[in-house]
Amino acid sequence: MRALTMDYQLTVPAILRRTEALYASKPVVSRRADRTLHRYTYGECLTRAKRLAAALRRLGVGPGDRVATLCWNHHQHLEAYFGVCLSGAVLHTLNLRLHPDDLAYIARHAGDSVLIVDRSLWPLWEKFRERTWVRHAIVVDAAGDVPEGAHDYERLVADADERAFAFAEPDEDDAVAMCYTTGTTGRPKGVVYSHRAIVLHSLACAMADAFGVTERDSVLPVVPMFHANAWGLPFICALTGAGLVMPGPHLDPRSLLELLAAERVTVTAGVPTIWLGILYTLDELAGQGRADAYDLSRLRVMLVGGAAAPESMIRGFQERHGLAVLHAWGMTEMAPVGTVGTLPSEVLSQPPDAQFAYRARQGRPAAFVEIRARGGDGLVPWDGATMGELEVRGAWVAGAYYESDDDVSRFTDDGWFRTGDIVTIDQRGTITVQDRAKDLIKSGGEWISSVALESALAGHPAVAEAAVVSVPHPEWLERPLAVVVLKSGRTATADELIAHLAPHFPKWWLPDEVAFVDAIPKTSVGKYLKSALRERFRERAGVR
Amino acid sequence: MRALTMDYQLTVPAILRRTEALYASKPVVSRRADRTLHRYTYGECLTRAKRLAAALRRLGVGPGDRVATLCWNHHQHLEAYFGVCLSGAVLHTLNLRLHPDDLAYIARHAGDSVLIVDRSLWPLWEKFRERTWVRHAIVVDAAGDVPEGAHDYERLVADADERAFAFAEPDEDDAVAMCYTTGTTGRPKGVVYSHRAIVLHSLACAMADAFGVTERDSVLPVVPMFHANAWGLPFICALTGAGLVMPGPHLDPRSLLELLAAERVTVTAGVPTIWLGILYTLDELAGQGRADAYDLSRLRVMLVGGAAAPESMIRGFQERHGLAVLHAWGMTEMAPVGTVGTLPSEVLSQPPDAQFAYRARQGRPAAFVEIRARGGDGLVPWDGATMGELEVRGAWVAGAYYESDDDVSRFTDDGWFRTGDIVTIDQRGTITVQDRAKDLIKSGGEWISSVALESALAGHPAVAEAAVVSVPHPEWLERPLAVVVLKSGRTATADELIAHLAPHFPKWWLPDEVAFVDAIPKTSVGKYLKSALRERFRERAGVR
Repeated sequence: MRALTMDYQLTVPAILRRTEALYASKPVVSRRADRTLHRYTYGECLTRAKRLAAALRRLGVGPGDRVATLCWNHHQHLEAYFGVCLSGAVLHTLNLRLHPDDLAYIARHAGDSVLIVDRSLWPLWEKFRERTWVRHAIVVDAAGDVPEGAHDYERLVADADERAFAFAEPDEDDAVAMCYTTGTTGRPKGVVYSHRAIVLHSLACAMADAFGVTERDSVLPVVPMFHANAWGLPFICALTGAGLVMPGPHLDPRSLLELLAAERVTVTAGVPTIWLGILYTLDELAGQGRADAYDLSRLRVMLVGGAAAPESMIRGFQERHGLAVLHAWGMTEMAPVGTVGTLPSEVLSQPPDAQFAYRARQGRPAAFVEIRARGGDGLVPWDGATMGELEVRGAWVAGAYYESDDDVSRFTDDGWFRTGDIVTIDQRGTITVQDRAKDLIKSGGEWISSVALESALAGHPAVAEAAVVSVPHPEWLERPLAVVVLKSGRTATADELIAHLAPHFPKWWLPDEVAFVDAIPKTSVGKYLKSALRERFRERAGVR
Repeated sequence: MRALTMDYQLTVPAILRRTEALYASKPVVSRRADRTLHRYTYGECLTRAKRLAAALRRLGVGPGDRVATLCWNHHQHLEAYFGVCLSGAVLHTLNLRLHPDDLAYIARHAGDSVLIVDRSLWPLWEKFRERTWVRHAIVVDAAGDVPEGAHDYERLVADADERAFAFAEPDEDDAVAMCYTTGTTGRPKGVVYSHRAIVLHSLACAMADAFGVTERDSVLPVVPMFHANAWGLPFICALTGAGLVMPGPHLDPRSLLELLAAERVTVTAGVPTIWLGILYTLDELAGQGRADAYDLSRLRVMLVGGAAAPESMIRGFQERHGLAVLHAWGMTEMAPVGTVGTLPSEVLSQPPDAQFAYRARQGRPAAFVEIRARGGDGLVPWDGATMGELEVRGAWVAGAYYESDDDVSRFTDDGWFRTGDIVTIDQRGTITVQDRAKDLIKSGGEWISSVALESALAGHPAVAEAAVVSVPHPEWLERPLAVVVLKSGRTATADELIAHLAPHFPKWWLPDEVAFVDAIPKTSVGKYLKSALRERFRERAGVR
């Protein structure tokens, strides 16, 4: 029996109709490259987004064409998010931290035909433009200095008339955005999001038990709009009417703290390295008796994801500064949110230590995301102890990569996506990420979690950063090695660090050796580049 | 360009897979007819629901077949909600307050083939069973007294094996539930909900800015599960893992207060008459120095809908008892939630009087519900003053009635649903329901809002209930007449009541006459039956 519900398509334009009808007066703030603040409303943003859509149409952009961006987080990038979607084209955010060779491959593979680029990033663009199909480059914040052959973003928007433009009425299964993975092995792979995926992701993330974003919130995404849709926050804010604050290129702790305080931000989101920098600065200020330098009393949640946040960091924010960190986990293939670490009622009644331990996990699946984990003997039990590769399916999970033949290895026969993350799942459905599959350490036939060791090392007062990688071993095949960056002015010996770990792990998990380095190499999205560490330290195996 | 997102169907079984995986240990409490409490978990509920599904299949129920319920709010009704959905059949809730003739029409029109009925309601069932197509009646809470020819619910569930049963994997556009409207004019009309409609309604209602239900909540729906899906709360709770408390047939204020306190309820929902009774009881207790008789400190929101709640009631709860009432508006045709009265940030910064005035309105549209209002000259401006008939479209709005030829008049040419409610819409998109279209009073060519007059009359200390209806008038065609029930032991004259209204309305809005009565007739869902009042008072026109 068929139901008799209206045919109502779940599209980004449907989100934006709501923004315009209900939230036109809500603020959008962004920091310019010159550090001044640009301030307007969703209503003004949407008018300009519509003009951009009209201008793109005039440049020959048709439905389904790819329009790339190469921009920091700012209001013109937001206009591009909305305007490209409204035009019926596909928004393709390019990651400005990638190597030009990768950017060339990605822009060409995606078939980008138009590029919107920050003036400050033009030199980067020049390094790969010849290797793409891009016909038009549109320059943001040119301030009169428009490179030859390029379009001035401001002029295009000023000259367009949003009223003379018939907006696309896409099908919910049409593509609305693309993003490429930044795997450390193999070619980047393209993920193509449907309107429906973005809408359902936004709805689920806006649930009270997920991010709980409301019209009363002021949201600052530190996470880049140039990767994984800034965790979907631009769309979530447009749906809920939350104010949006964008930091531009200024991601240092002082700049962020200033913005968090001045704009009375309530929700912010970033990777662990960003928050570690902020925590260090807040501790330093407190040590100088200036704990009140920034008023963060409005800040109710700091979302952290992209990598595991050490428990010591979560504790430090809560105990020393009264700030709540909320863990989430996701992937480019998941738009990107997969799990959120909101405390279950049962855990809320436990003592603080148990709560902190829970908060260091990655949480439970968002609504309409389903999880399971597979070990050598099939699906693993939800016992919080047995490791397996996490598999997911759900309403916004990729079902294939764009023009790729890598699909076979990443999807199961029954249609689940293999995440490549090694996890345990507890009885409540909470995942704890133990490792990337490719970073796993298998010693004497047993798995060792590098993530757990790293989180514990990060809790030592002298440690700034720590990565644990496998090195070859004649007897055990692989053994863990810790690579550590000490805080400036602090000292610690290898023995002290191992002793710090010893109470918390089986003896055979403890690294055989600690290598002290000045810096740990990172990927374009701030994760440890462990392949480089393994290469560098492959001869260091031995018994401590 | 098509997106590459997984095909993931938005179905009630997908909600229930989540409930089982994450929330199996959360509590479900319900009050039996004998006032004792039944207590178990979602896990146990789902096991029984699956057995019910298996039992239905054995009785010959196939995909799309209609299974009716005639039950109060209790755990077996919840099992039927879930079990019928899991079996692939369509859940059809019958309103036990309807006349047997209407029930006969509805059950026959829907083609119900199986009925699940409370033992206490068997006498009602006997009054119309012969006029339906129902082949099997299943009796709940029979306690050994199973009428001849009927099945015992407990035995059916006990005998079934949930493991031997292949669950339906419906398409999201398949029908999952039906409900008939209870209009006071014309035949009841059937609304057929899709899985997708229930899922999207649940997601949007769980948003932090809507009902904001979380896993930490304990939810008591006073609104009946036999009409409009108890505002979707059974599905919303299953999705979010909130505990569920059901009152059975005991809806008197003392029984409800006892349950709200004992089960530490955080969210409850009901029609204004229910809350007026509760407020009266709380005031009475406070007057006796027993304000602490029931500990309601956990109760964070009392949802009210189904009719306009008077501002005086909202104020009374907040100012005298610290309890927050949240207005919502909806219709059977909307699954049922359309708007929610959460305060916008802008209003939160206004003085209490402005906030109370806002809270007496019906609120702003839920996500993926769109609104507009049409007057004599086309769509009306969003100025908070111009009245028009509310039209809606959205992701869970009915697109047609079940086997009805009444569709033409209720849907616009461009596919919006005409609600029959006369509203104003303010600049923020907040609706204020002024009247049902058929109850409108048009005096001298201008509309008068009976709802506004009724809410103001309800604020007079002597008034228990007030309805305002139109009566014919030789000069103005129609004039308003107030029908008032006084509180026991209180007095007020017509002149006093008119004087109470005078400061708040144009002079020509004031009723010409006040009729004092013992009771106002109501519909099966507790709304004033104004057609009966108009009939009774049609000769009372005149100049005061």
